[in-house]
Order: sequence, then C-alpha cells, then structure tokens
Amino acid sequence: MTDDVLVSPAELFGDGVFETVHLRPSGPFLLPAHLTRLARSAALLDLAVPDLGRLEAFRSDISESALRIIFTRRSHHVTVAPIPPDALRERRDGVRVISAGLGFKVGGKPPWSLWEAKTLSYAESFAARRWARSRGADDLLWLSTEGYALEAPTASLVWLAGSELCTVPPREAQILPGTTAAHLLSLAPSVGLSPAYRMVTIEQLRGADAIWLASALRGLSFVRQLDGAPRRHSRWTPILLDLLGY
Amino acid sequence: MTDDVLVSPAELFGDGVFETVHLRPSGPFLLPAHLTRLARSAALLDLAVPDLGRLEAFRSDISESALRIIFTRRSHHVTVAPIPPDALRERRDGVRVISAGLGFKVGGKPPWSLWEAKTLSYAESFAARRWARSRGADDLLWLSTEGYALEAPTASLVWLAGSELCTVPPREAQILPGTTAAHLLSLAPSVGLSPAYRMVTIEQLRGADAIWLASALRGLSFVRQLDGAPRRHSRWTPILLDLLGY
Repeated sequence: MTDDVLVSPAELFGDGVFETVHLRPSGPFLLPAHLTRLARSAALLDLAVPDLGRLEAFRSDISESALRIIFTRRSHHVTVAPIPPDALRERRDGVRVISAGLGFKVGGKPPWSLWEAKTLSYAESFAARRWARSRGADDLLWLSTEGYALEAPTASLVWLAGSELCTVPPREAQILPGTTAAHLLSLAPSVGLSPAYRMVTIEQLRGADAIWLASALRGLSFVRQLDGAPRRHSRWTPILLDLLGY
Repeated sequence: MTDDVLVSPAELFGDGVFETVHLRPSGPFLLPAHLTRLARSAALLDLAVPDLGRLEAFRSDISESALRIIFTRRSHHVTVAPIPPDALRERRDGVRVISAGLGFKVGGKPPWSLWEAKTLSYAESFAARRWARSRGADDLLWLSTEGYALEAPTASLVWLAGSELCTVPPREAQILPGTTAAHLLSLAPSVGLSPAYRMVTIEQLRGADAIWLASALRGLSFVRQLDGAPRRHSRWTPILLDLLGY
C-alpha cells in the first residue's frame, strides 16, 4: 500500500488535504474524528469528497501502523506504512522543543487562510522543523507575535496546570484542531483531571507542571526540554499514554 | 509531455520547488534566470539539484507554451503544456485586483520562512486567488500589516511613477524575486524609463500612472481595476509587452 501512485504533475502543488490516522490491530484510532476533520478541510479547499470505501475495516497486522488518507484536487490515495522511527523514539524519550515566533498576531491570519484545514502544503512546516533541528531541538513551538504558544508544525500543545489538562482553543488561536488532543481532554475526567481550552503565553507555559505534544503517530510526547531548559519528568506521561491506548 | 507521472505518496506534500518558463519557438525565455532561481529555491529546501539535461534545446511548436520544471524531494519532472486561457485573457484584457493584508509586518516572516523559494506548497496561494475571485476580482495584491504592497500570489507588482518603472525590492519585502519583473526593469532604459526598486504603500500605489502584474505566462497584465476603482489604460502597456517579446 506504500507503492508509487500515478498523478498529474498539477497534483504536486500541495493543493489538497490529508489525515494521518493511528492504525491499530483493532482498527483505525479515532477514525470518525479524522474523517470529520478531513471533510471540513476538503470543504475549505473546495474539494469534492470521494467515497473512501470501508476504512473502518483496515487493521494493522503489526502492533501499530500509519494510515494516511490523501485527497488532491484530482485523485485520492490511502496508504499504510510503518510508524516513522522518530515518532516512536519521541513518544518513548520525549522531545526537546524550541519556541519561535510565526510572525502573526492572534486572529491576524488573512481571510483565505487555510489554518483550519490540514493541507498538503507542508514545505514551510518541514522547513520549520529543519530549522529547529539545526538548533539542537527535535521540534518547535510556534508563537504569536504577542507571545502566545500556538502549536507545533505537526502536533498540538497540551499542558498540565495543577489539576487542569489544557490545550489551545483552535478557533481563537487560528490553529488546526487537534484530534488526539481533543480526545485526550475528553478523557481527562476519568483520571481526575479537568479539561480546559485556554490561551497560554510562553512564559506561563514555562511554569506548567508538564508539557506534551499530541499527534496521531507520536500519541503524546513529553517535552523534556524547552528553549534549552530541562524539564522534570511527569508521572502523568505514562498515565495519559495509557489512557490514549499507545 | 503533460502525461501523468509516477511518484511516491510522500511527494504529494508540496515539499519541493518549481519554475514556470515562457516557452517560445525560439526557446525558453529567460532560462538562465529561472535556473538560477530554481537552484536557490532548491538550496533553501536542502534539495539536491539533478541534471536537467539540455532544457535550452526545448522549443514551442506553437506560438507559445508553458514549460514547467518541478523538483520534489525524490524526483524531477519537466512538462510542456498550453498557456492557460486565463493567462492569455489577462495579458490581453488586464486584471481586476483587490488588495488584502497577508498578516505579516515587513521583515516579520520567521527565520525558516521559504519566501525566497518558489515552493510547490501552493494551497494558500490558490485559496487566496479563490477568495479574490469570490469578490469579483481576478487576482489579489498582498499587503503587509503596515500597508505596503508586496506581490500577487503568482506575480510581481510593477508600476510606473513619472518616468520611473518600479518594482518591490524582494529581500527587503521578503517576497519571491520576480524573473519577468527584474528583466523588464533591466530593459527600462531602452524605452527612456529609469528602473527603481522601492517599497510602496497601497495608498501611494493608487496614485501611480500605471500598475501591472508581471509573471512568466501572463507576461505583463495591466491592472484595470484596483479595489473596485477603474484605472485608465496606459500607452506603456503595449510598449512594455513588446519589449518583453510577448
């Protein structure tokens, strides 16, 4: 299923949408939420939504795999591939993160901006991550010009403040709604935490009890270093990973 | 040459660079400048530059064609296709343009930003143009948050102020250097105009003697309406188009 695909050269311009789903032996994790987001992404790009067949019947024949659903303007592709080794390592060992301004004020993206869509136009996100890696980090955290922490290039920000498990409100912050983060917050009460969507400045975030990046393949990755400063391990990391079934 | 191509699904994420060249019966117009920009774009994305063969031997067997050179992270593709009808129409009839803020200050793009590279990640540019069209315009002009006019999604801004033929300085404005615009300015003295690279606010631009969008396929397209206000034709439009050989 990771074979090459035949496309028109016009389909190489990132003008499409996708989802990455954590494929388990039991099936695709959070598939309805991913398909809902995919449909919204497609609508924002004026893309037709093709019939994808019975995706819920997909199973990982190893412990876990990456299921990708890709829509271009002319074709769609479903692939199953191994979880990238980096994702497994970052789930296990945590991540070193640096924060960096994205250049926008909160609410300052232009009216055509596709912030709510998971588009295929990833060159800037890949460049941002190369930039972070060139500075000795694994990933980066985008900030608004006012200093609000927003999201990572391919992950949502989650943090613990006392007994509150928090993430950033996507609409207010103009960021992609995170499927894994939203699910995690919905489960928070089952382990005695209260879910909260709130804006957080990078300075407030430094004082959080724990910080994670949430995404479909990494699941939850503990931020073990932020802007060069080491952070203590949290007893919540294995509890929350277990809650998510990773 | 516009046949489908076989690619890895990973190549659908816009993580590459390209050039569009005006292909004439005499050969590819401004090929060295396009190849120079392509090499710089590739370097900014850490892409290897493959041997492209003898592109200078390409000829259009009709009056004009579009030659595209596409590099993804894994393959490269060269295509020849007809000039899109919209480009021919906009060259002939001019364009209705609306201005809209991009959300960045001048110089405010993040350090990893690929503004100097012509990347394949075009979803936002296509969305911007759909937005403009939904408002009765053909194209849009991006503004900085301070109100400086920057560029169009796929074209450079050129304007006439007295005897000066002007465009925006790419490095200062953090915009893609325009191949057609740079060449046009280099030819300006031959028709008695002085070339000038300068920042211009949208209010100053409204007072210009003439405004054009410059790009490889449209060549030069006269801005006949800006933000709903009609603009008078300029005797310079046919002179400059002729100078460029369109």
